[in-house]
Amino acid sequence: MNLTEDRLARIALTWLTEPGTWTVHRMVDRVGPVVTLAALLDGGAPSDALRRAVAARLNAGDPRAVAAEAVERADRLGARLVTPHDAEWPGKVAHLRQLSLDGADRKVDRDTAPPLCLWVRGSWPLAEVLDRSVAVVGARAATGYGLHVATELGYGLGERGWTVVSGGAFGIDAAAHRGALTAGAVTVAVLACGVDRPYPVGNTALFDRIAETGLLVSEWIPGSEPFRPRFLIRNRVIAAATRGSVLVEASARSGATQTMRRALAIKRPAMVVPGPVTSAMSVGAHELLREYPDARLVTGLAHVLEEVGRIGTDLAPPARGPVRPTDHLDDDATMVLEALPRRGVTGLDSIAARAGVAVRTALRKLALLEQLGLVVHRDGGYALTPQRQPPAPTT
Amino acid sequence: MNLTEDRLARIALTWLTEPGTWTVHRMVDRVGPVVTLAALLDGGAPSDALRRAVAARLNAGDPRAVAAEAVERADRLGARLVTPHDAEWPGKVAHLRQLSLDGADRKVDRDTAPPLCLWVRGSWPLAEVLDRSVAVVGARAATGYGLHVATELGYGLGERGWTVVSGGAFGIDAAAHRGALTAGAVTVAVLACGVDRPYPVGNTALFDRIAETGLLVSEWIPGSEPFRPRFLIRNRVIAAATRGSVLVEASARSGATQTMRRALAIKRPAMVVPGPVTSAMSVGAHELLREYPDARLVTGLAHVLEEVGRIGTDLAPPARGPVRPTDHLDDDATMVLEALPRRGVTGLDSIAARAGVAVRTALRKLALLEQLGLVVHRDGGYALTPQRQPPAPTT
Repeated sequence: MNLTEDRLARIALTWLTEPGTWTVHRMVDRVGPVVTLAALLDGGAPSDALRRAVAARLNAGDPRAVAAEAVERADRLGARLVTPHDAEWPGKVAHLRQLSLDGADRKVDRDTAPPLCLWVRGSWPLAEVLDRSVAVVGARAATGYGLHVATELGYGLGERGWTVVSGGAFGIDAAAHRGALTAGAVTVAVLACGVDRPYPVGNTALFDRIAETGLLVSEWIPGSEPFRPRFLIRNRVIAAATRGSVLVEASARSGATQTMRRALAIKRPAMVVPGPVTSAMSVGAHELLREYPDARLVTGLAHVLEEVGRIGTDLAPPARGPVRPTDHLDDDATMVLEALPRRGVTGLDSIAARAGVAVRTALRKLALLEQLGLVVHRDGGYALTPQRQPPAPTT
Repeated sequence: MNLTEDRLARIALTWLTEPGTWTVHRMVDRVGPVVTLAALLDGGAPSDALRRAVAARLNAGDPRAVAAEAVERADRLGARLVTPHDAEWPGKVAHLRQLSLDGADRKVDRDTAPPLCLWVRGSWPLAEVLDRSVAVVGARAATGYGLHVATELGYGLGERGWTVVSGGAFGIDAAAHRGALTAGAVTVAVLACGVDRPYPVGNTALFDRIAETGLLVSEWIPGSEPFRPRFLIRNRVIAAATRGSVLVEASARSGATQTMRRALAIKRPAMVVPGPVTSAMSVGAHELLREYPDARLVTGLAHVLEEVGRIGTDLAPPARGPVRPTDHLDDDATMVLEALPRRGVTGLDSIAARAGVAVRTALRKLALLEQLGLVVHRDGGYALTPQRQPPAPTT
């Protein structure tokens, strides 16, 4: 096998047909990219639809020439091509093989094959960076709440040595990337266009920082435009290249919820941050939690680490409120404490009767309450310590 | 069986031992309340702890006299006693029989027997009012968000003819009751003290309105004080008397989460409203959703009705965003639309090549896009309709 030919053929194939196309991927699996490319160029696509699509794209140029030009363009930019033959290829994306959704009615939902190759801008080895990585995705039109949560998550993950992967979009994506950058961590933006012209242009400064300290990654050749369906095609890579995905905010129609469905389909942790039910930007998050029993509600870094961390090392402690002196009282002690009137001294028998406990139980519990400083013994009876009125009843 | 004796014995038993005590309930099941009372008064309680508790309470009065006085006091107040022999007894509470939690380490968690009798203030028949009822419970120190959601839920349920049941506490409870009252609906406050002195006093005006148009209910005799453990003992009745329970806000240590665990234990719908993960008042809600797979995330009335409503009549539609003209385009049409530059006229072949679809597919899709008013055909090519620039790509 000529590796240079193999690489050029992979590039040509991703240009000739959109990435993820199962028909193409199956041919590559069987006969390799060089033979697949030759077959497609000869009009030998196994389906009419693919044959016609190839024919149409050929009007725009010669795939081999396009591929060669893409390599030159990438060289000038300092970007590189990574294929399954390279040491830095992220093996996890092969799990997309499980994701053949024949029943799906849209091409982007159906054509979910693993990528044939990835363009990478940045100096870290791709596989190493993605080994301990978490995707943080969500709405572009995020709220202050979502931006806050995404930034905190990105920062927290980064601080713990995790790579934060997202899509480089406005809103949640950018907040997650920025959080990671603030922590001095590596962050990866997986793009739906060429790594030379990351979209959106408004995030250019962010992309420049990511390219310097992290990675920009794309399946599309340099120069490619961010056509709308490409974002959805791209999402499967975000889901498959990471140990798990976190959705921070999503409206009912957000593409970010699709990333989560991809993660669920390949049995990766799919984590969802809830939000106010009054917020349109959490509707998609709540629907995911309702629809998919495997989607996991997370409220912050501890929960995320519990899902993606090595078992037993990153378990989140259950939520606890503040500790009060009355917390560890048993029911008898609580009844005795409550049976004491707010003011005045009460006799032992009367306390026991009000509390409905035996006199000797009352005596023992009163001794305990005295030790805790909640009750004082005086004038032959018992009274509440003035500063320690019992807290109001709990609903 | 002498029904008057039976009623007085039930009253005396709830005073002599806290409601829910399994030992007492099992004796009543076997030999009836009159014989049970006589046995307890003779020192014949089956356990030392119960025998001592009974002996202590006897110092505070004669149970039969207390019971007779309670009936008089209730008569003066216009309250009544309801027992399992009455037509208006809510049969659903018997499901608490399933709730014998022998492993539980606190008395209030362990002693969860059905009530022996209930005091009722208000004119509606208890069983009828509780037939179509939903519990809405939550934190006292609720936030504006929680109060808003609870009020809306109470109103919405009331408007649809459902009874809203809660505990009459500040915060979520009061908001749910008020929402129902605003809808002109029946609402029921299940109290942890006598129906003559509903707690908290700050809700007196609310309790007066509930007593007029709904019901105040309690297991404790008139005059009883709201000792702290009683709120937790009471919670099991809220869970068991309703078709399902909704938790709106709860801190990590809230008693309201215990109501939900009761509902879960007897397999009633346990619905939880999520909130911002930044809010301490939603920590208990999120923990419930994480801990109990059967706890159901709900975001509003439609979801609640779906859980408690008759199957098939109250199904909530899945959340949907606004409809756009491009929503129903297939992937080919979307690619063709995206392939059109923002400005200028482009030829058919070039469009097909950019979109990666067959020329005749492009032609068909362009005709469709023209019909939708998204594209115009002019100067031998195609252009975007000026006012219909394609929407920005979706992440």
